[in-house]
Amino acid sequence: MDYSLFDDTIAAPATIPGTGAVTLLRVSGPKALRIVSDVVKCESKSIEETLAGRIRYGVVYNESEEVVDEVLVSVFKAPHSYTGEDSAEITCHASSFVASEILRLLCTAGARMASPGEFTRRAFVNGKMDLAQAEAVADVISSSSTASLKVAINQLRGGFSSELKDIRSRLLEVASLLELELDFSEEDVEFADRSKLATLLDEAASHVISLASSFRQGNAIKNGVPVAIVGAVNAGKSTLLNALLGEERAIVSDIPGTTRDTVEETLVLDGILFRFIDTAGLREASDTVEQIGVSRSYKKLSEASVVLAVLDVSASEEENESSISDIVSKIDPSSQKLIVLLNKADILDGNINVSLLNEYVLFTDNKVIKLYISAKTGFGLDSLRKALSATQKDLTLDSDQTIVTNMRHFQALSETGSALSRASASLSSGLTPDLIAEDLRSALYHLGTITGEVTPDEVLGEIFGRFCIGK
Amino acid sequence: MDYSLFDDTIAAPATIPGTGAVTLLRVSGPKALRIVSDVVKCESKSIEETLAGRIRYGVVYNESEEVVDEVLVSVFKAPHSYTGEDSAEITCHASSFVASEILRLLCTAGARMASPGEFTRRAFVNGKMDLAQAEAVADVISSSSTASLKVAINQLRGGFSSELKDIRSRLLEVASLLELELDFSEEDVEFADRSKLATLLDEAASHVISLASSFRQGNAIKNGVPVAIVGAVNAGKSTLLNALLGEERAIVSDIPGTTRDTVEETLVLDGILFRFIDTAGLREASDTVEQIGVSRSYKKLSEASVVLAVLDVSASEEENESSISDIVSKIDPSSQKLIVLLNKADILDGNINVSLLNEYVLFTDNKVIKLYISAKTGFGLDSLRKALSATQKDLTLDSDQTIVTNMRHFQALSETGSALSRASASLSSGLTPDLIAEDLRSALYHLGTITGEVTPDEVLGEIFGRFCIGK
Repeated sequence: MDYSLFDDTIAAPATIPGTGAVTLLRVSGPKALRIVSDVVKCESKSIEETLAGRIRYGVVYNESEEVVDEVLVSVFKAPHSYTGEDSAEITCHASSFVASEILRLLCTAGARMASPGEFTRRAFVNGKMDLAQAEAVADVISSSSTASLKVAINQLRGGFSSELKDIRSRLLEVASLLELELDFSEEDVEFADRSKLATLLDEAASHVISLASSFRQGNAIKNGVPVAIVGAVNAGKSTLLNALLGEERAIVSDIPGTTRDTVEETLVLDGILFRFIDTAGLREASDTVEQIGVSRSYKKLSEASVVLAVLDVSASEEENESSISDIVSKIDPSSQKLIVLLNKADILDGNINVSLLNEYVLFTDNKVIKLYISAKTGFGLDSLRKALSATQKDLTLDSDQTIVTNMRHFQALSETGSALSRASASLSSGLTPDLIAEDLRSALYHLGTITGEVTPDEVLGEIFGRFCIGK
Repeated sequence: MDYSLFDDTIAAPATIPGTGAVTLLRVSGPKALRIVSDVVKCESKSIEETLAGRIRYGVVYNESEEVVDEVLVSVFKAPHSYTGEDSAEITCHASSFVASEILRLLCTAGARMASPGEFTRRAFVNGKMDLAQAEAVADVISSSSTASLKVAINQLRGGFSSELKDIRSRLLEVASLLELELDFSEEDVEFADRSKLATLLDEAASHVISLASSFRQGNAIKNGVPVAIVGAVNAGKSTLLNALLGEERAIVSDIPGTTRDTVEETLVLDGILFRFIDTAGLREASDTVEQIGVSRSYKKLSEASVVLAVLDVSASEEENESSISDIVSKIDPSSQKLIVLLNKADILDGNINVSLLNEYVLFTDNKVIKLYISAKTGFGLDSLRKALSATQKDLTLDSDQTIVTNMRHFQALSETGSALSRASASLSSGLTPDLIAEDLRSALYHLGTITGEVTPDEVLGEIFGRFCIGK
């Protein structure tokens, strides 16, 4: 019996051939098990005759009956597989030569090379997961902190999807009542209780808007909390960045790809990913090139969630006052947090009891934390790390909380929210049901694009095209 | 029942986390299935209760009962596993963060991180494969041509080992007869028929020496046939190298790691790996630095199996005559092959019928092939490729032929051969059995180091230390 909506069989490596100890090849499609039977020879029963959920040892021969490799094959049968199709996973030795030989033989036997994300796309089309879950696969793979993994896993396991499904089914109820009124519009009846309708719309709108507004937090979890390091020239900003990264660099480099393609440096503190942005020193720029650098620093400063203002304790009080008031004037206290760092505290030794000073946060109000540190000796950096993770208390997630991390979802939720607000406004102004129904249809459409009920093909192509081959 | 000689359980990734679509983690040891049961939760039966050869779906939770990942687990039971121990393979999403979380949980549950090659070392110690087979695992992984894979697979499947076992058992027979004579030496009896003994020794010696002498060929198969490109300055040597690689570079880059750590370039032609060495132009060196370059060119020339002598057709006949006779004087015709290339043939167009010239090899004796080419236009390069692969006809292997590719094996076989030759000489000179027996013991010792019967621990450490983690 063929459960699949596809009639061809695809194959690809699911790990990078030529690295590690073994390579895993995936084959999926209606002829997957017949094709693998042709390529991998087993004693007694063939792969095609093997029961689902079993592992078989076999030998791959080429056309000249020479042994290519000894392999293990895991057998999956539709619909109980990742794609929902008959599938096999072949574990061969890690040589890329061996992997490409086996893939060549699989293609000769009737498979074709899979395009990026094609396995997950089939899982989506065959109803094994919805679009939001499929997108979470990529997020799980790229997760690099406890918080980002937690959000991605929740989405993968359908937490986000079931929340959307709830909203959608409630809206569908309202919509169907309104559509019924439209069918009987000449009779001027009201099937839907207007006050109940208003409550439902408002609840849905506020739920959708609250989900959309979790995106700022979700984006920080996924891409890191942006932390700008600003201050006068020679205040020790780059030394600070190196000192922060130095001890923890092992963690960063444990995760290949975390810092790939970024000019900024990331660091995980208490399970939260921080993205540090070193900036050019702020001062009266003497030439055009430096002016551009300084204006960029101000831009980074405005985009950051946390600003580390680095002062030099050996500078004059006037200089520091002017520097800090310049920075403070550029900060939005409603959305940004400021940590003032009095750097080079080591040279104060003897003049102030620096160890005591760092026991406590010297001066704390709602937004400002002030710490003595020495980027050079490492003094005070532990307090700084604690202060940084304390600024992100709201990133410590409740297990029930749904966080939106995907820009596409954020946009769809925003569209849904606007449509619902319009519907709600039309309702309270006593407008006719056809106008309310139109906004509701728009809300349902945008909500549906997230889980893939109404997603056009080109959007699917774009989503799955970003996946790696073999996923 | 515990089949293993080890009492601890090891874990490691068998593919590189953070790349590809999935990561495969290996766990092996007496407590492997109990530990994986603790970390991966399945519905109904636990991993420990699962039958061998089955695949289970499960969920990994961390200490805070948060989901880390959804995984597949393959269950293997001693002695029917790679290591011969109870083992499990966990397929998780490809995030290195997820992989390191699961490994951490496995270690918390009682496993420890495996050292490089430790899985294969256990397979060796537990009698699943001998040392030569274990070494072949690394060769299969690094194989990058049909020929090198064939040799490695033959060795992995025990072809080489069973040949050595044959020799060893025949030598053991002779040795035991001689040892018996030594026990009864006061009675002056001869248990071993001296002429039969001589035949046995000579046969074994010639077999061992023929295996050892296959190393030159084996090394060419494994590391590539060395091809030196030599000639006068500006004859077009580097252009030729680029032209040869250009079209085929895709093949080379299909195999990550082939050209890693080499300054030379490799290319697979007809399933044979060639290693091209571009050299400094040969001419009367005017300064010391250039002298060093030229003397290095002569050295590369002497080490190559094939020499490509590049001449410039636009140069004078005298210049080319002098250049070619210089090169020919440096070549050993008994072990090296020469291909003379008349480069820049494109500028002759109209003067000679170049297409006709390339239909045939212009002038062939035992060693010299002459071809008109144009590295610039690509003219004649197909003929050159055919000529190159034709020089290595002996690298096209009979399926029964055993080839030694490992330097350690070559050295052990050479030692064995010398000891057997000494024993044979002692025998024919009528020396006493104790001298012959001593040489035989030495021969058996060296033969035994190849398959691992008598290999000291530090040699094992060195062999398996070169493996990657997870193998």
